[in-house]
Amino acid sequence: MLTYNFENRGKTSLYDYLYQCIRNDILSGKIKAGEKLPSKREMAKNHNISVITVENAYEQLMVEGYIYSEEKKGYFVGKLGAQYETVSRWSKSSESIQKNRFQKKKEKKEWLVDFNSNHIMYDSFPFATWSKIMRRTLSDREKDFLTSPSPQGIEELRIAIAEHLLHFRGMEVNPDNIIVGAGTEYLYSMIVQLLGKNTCIALEDPGYHKIGRVYESNGVQCLPIKIDMDGLCVKELEKSNAKAVHISPSHHFPTGRVMPVSRRQQLLLWAEKNNGFLIEDDYDSEFRFSGKPIPSILGMDPGRVIYMNTFSKTLAPSIRIAYMILPDNLLKKYYTDLNFYSGTVSSFEQYTLASFIAEGYYERHINRMRNYYRDYRNKIIKAIRKSPLYTKVTIEEENAGLHFILGIQKETDDGKLKQILRNHNINISSVSDYCYNKQKEFRHKFIINYSAVPEENLTKALAVMNEALDEK
Amino acid sequence: MLTYNFENRGKTSLYDYLYQCIRNDILSGKIKAGEKLPSKREMAKNHNISVITVENAYEQLMVEGYIYSEEKKGYFVGKLGAQYETVSRWSKSSESIQKNRFQKKKEKKEWLVDFNSNHIMYDSFPFATWSKIMRRTLSDREKDFLTSPSPQGIEELRIAIAEHLLHFRGMEVNPDNIIVGAGTEYLYSMIVQLLGKNTCIALEDPGYHKIGRVYESNGVQCLPIKIDMDGLCVKELEKSNAKAVHISPSHHFPTGRVMPVSRRQQLLLWAEKNNGFLIEDDYDSEFRFSGKPIPSILGMDPGRVIYMNTFSKTLAPSIRIAYMILPDNLLKKYYTDLNFYSGTVSSFEQYTLASFIAEGYYERHINRMRNYYRDYRNKIIKAIRKSPLYTKVTIEEENAGLHFILGIQKETDDGKLKQILRNHNINISSVSDYCYNKQKEFRHKFIINYSAVPEENLTKALAVMNEALDEK
Repeated sequence: MLTYNFENRGKTSLYDYLYQCIRNDILSGKIKAGEKLPSKREMAKNHNISVITVENAYEQLMVEGYIYSEEKKGYFVGKLGAQYETVSRWSKSSESIQKNRFQKKKEKKEWLVDFNSNHIMYDSFPFATWSKIMRRTLSDREKDFLTSPSPQGIEELRIAIAEHLLHFRGMEVNPDNIIVGAGTEYLYSMIVQLLGKNTCIALEDPGYHKIGRVYESNGVQCLPIKIDMDGLCVKELEKSNAKAVHISPSHHFPTGRVMPVSRRQQLLLWAEKNNGFLIEDDYDSEFRFSGKPIPSILGMDPGRVIYMNTFSKTLAPSIRIAYMILPDNLLKKYYTDLNFYSGTVSSFEQYTLASFIAEGYYERHINRMRNYYRDYRNKIIKAIRKSPLYTKVTIEEENAGLHFILGIQKETDDGKLKQILRNHNINISSVSDYCYNKQKEFRHKFIINYSAVPEENLTKALAVMNEALDEK
Repeated sequence: MLTYNFENRGKTSLYDYLYQCIRNDILSGKIKAGEKLPSKREMAKNHNISVITVENAYEQLMVEGYIYSEEKKGYFVGKLGAQYETVSRWSKSSESIQKNRFQKKKEKKEWLVDFNSNHIMYDSFPFATWSKIMRRTLSDREKDFLTSPSPQGIEELRIAIAEHLLHFRGMEVNPDNIIVGAGTEYLYSMIVQLLGKNTCIALEDPGYHKIGRVYESNGVQCLPIKIDMDGLCVKELEKSNAKAVHISPSHHFPTGRVMPVSRRQQLLLWAEKNNGFLIEDDYDSEFRFSGKPIPSILGMDPGRVIYMNTFSKTLAPSIRIAYMILPDNLLKKYYTDLNFYSGTVSSFEQYTLASFIAEGYYERHINRMRNYYRDYRNKIIKAIRKSPLYTKVTIEEENAGLHFILGIQKETDDGKLKQILRNHNINISSVSDYCYNKQKEFRHKFIINYSAVPEENLTKALAVMNEALDEK
């Protein structure tokens, strides 16, 4: 007769403890397949527990397939498959991973200046307004909170985006062509699904490597094509079998170059001729510091352009909302092939952002941030110009975006120079880091992401850089 | 000499208007490539505007590549590529899409009862608590709001999930093995990237078709394998070249069946032998109405199981947060190959959810919802049992989840029966709708998603169904 000691059960309920005891005995082979269990009444009497407790335990064992009942005969142990190792493997693995994590954490370095970081400034986000709208959204939108958001994004947000683009960028966009998603990277995977897997996508060389990684991880081939002063070389593109080309015409990363209208026309003609698409990555077009924002290519031909932008750059990196604007031919394919996907952005944040844009806060925020960044950039550039470092460097393409290029007139290998600076606690990347194929033109150019540079460390950092440049 | 009428400029600024006029003349060919523009001073004098206004307009035209300057010679029109049609194509397309949308909207039908819908009930979500935590998060977490969330999800949330699983499901999970994402569908695409594109994933037949659509849209081959009373048939699986098998062992959709321990062991052995993986979809395991939640397969062998669950089902469909637990071997691959991806869930919602779980609200909410759904299901089942319809139907697998099966004893084609019911404003799906390959066993079984059925319409709906079943 099975007997278990209920005194060891701790906080476990009687029925759960009985269930666990029997299950373990079955798994360990102590009770064999086909063996009859004591009747509920016997089991209860033997342990001085109620029949209902036993019933519950037996019921659970039945549902999980450990035992079965035969009418008027009783309960029997089921036939399990080959014995299976059930010892938890977590504890061991947990330790080793924990070790790795601690090592990783240790590696985090305190830089004097980190020109690779572009965290936005702490006091720049309009918390009070955002918080007010959130609270209002939560109370006004209770019902909407309980239904699934539209796969392509809630209508209010898409209309707000379209109106913002009209007002701010002069772009006439149908809200129906807008697809909202949890970040641009997610939208890239949608583009791959729209264009098909056996596709080649051309990329700018130099360019932001992560874009290519996302495309490739989603199963397409990527072809880096070098850029000249006007942007991606169309001749190279024409020789390729690319179906689409990913470009940032308003503000190329990292060179900061703007693509002139003639190159834009050439790219559109290429797309027209080859039934191809331009993926227009407009990631920081909002931060142009003189004149108007550069017009989008989308405005020149909405039939061949997939336009993309994100709110993570302009609002806060913790807000994972981006959008793309599909041309009608791809939109049709989206409705047929991809509209079954659930949305990826919580509707609560979508409604909050929609109100934030529609009530004019977004535009005000961008204007405020643009002024803020311009002033901050001017401060940094002024400091460089005043420092002794200035005799050894040039400043390029400083009219837009959250970074500019520092040309360093020193015949040292870029990698070595970076290491020297790193040894002095200055973290910096070079344009050549973003080249797929090394190009002479892009040597000795370094990227200054200035938005997260603490002002108080700057003078010291520039002095250190100046000295470092004299090292061999 | 170029002369423009500034009276038509409306609200456009002087410089912007001049820029637009010149640009349009260049694009239309009225001013030819190589032609010299009037000097800034001439242009200003001719239009009675300031030189600075002209300078700004010329500057913008230069940045965008319409004109160029030669030192001491003046401004010249640039050489554009072949003339490109710049008329916006949106207006036309916009109309046609708008028409489609209206048509779509008209199709939305008001059902007497919709057994296909499983919207959660309006008053079930703990708005007050959620709102309180959100407000606190917003004020406590300002700084975190301005940094990118960790790609795999913020640590607080992963720890909260691990502790919840330990407490609620008896699962010992390392928070480092948890990957948070914007919905299960997004996580499926990650699984595809982890397993590789040239993979075959086996699915349950019948099963939830959307899962297969997501996998296939991400480039893998899917193989539906029929289920018997114990779940997916391992013999069929062994004959296949599947690398992984997607199963819902706690509560199969749509049959509601629970996979017994013997089948689980067989599947694990298959995975072990074939270096394969089980994808354990635990989508509504929280809503088991009698006994304890069914233990997860993950607990039997964390080395071969990818566990998945979502908060969209238990909290609200508008919250797009799901997670998966990777075995160590895949976690390693994730860190090497996929950790470059940005997170997809806003950190604000992650912090809110983390507190909601850690402070015990989530478990209380689940318990409350489980009681609520059990009571509601009991009401529905009682109503069916009391109605004349009951002589023509059977109720199956009603111990868990937000749906149960209604067997209808009538020798009509399932499709025809659904149409008859639809004609009476009752929307319902059959299990055969979820079969990839028609199986006799699953005929005449209909799915009752009861959670969104309005109580006040139920009696009438059952009477209508009863009559409808007598129709031919």
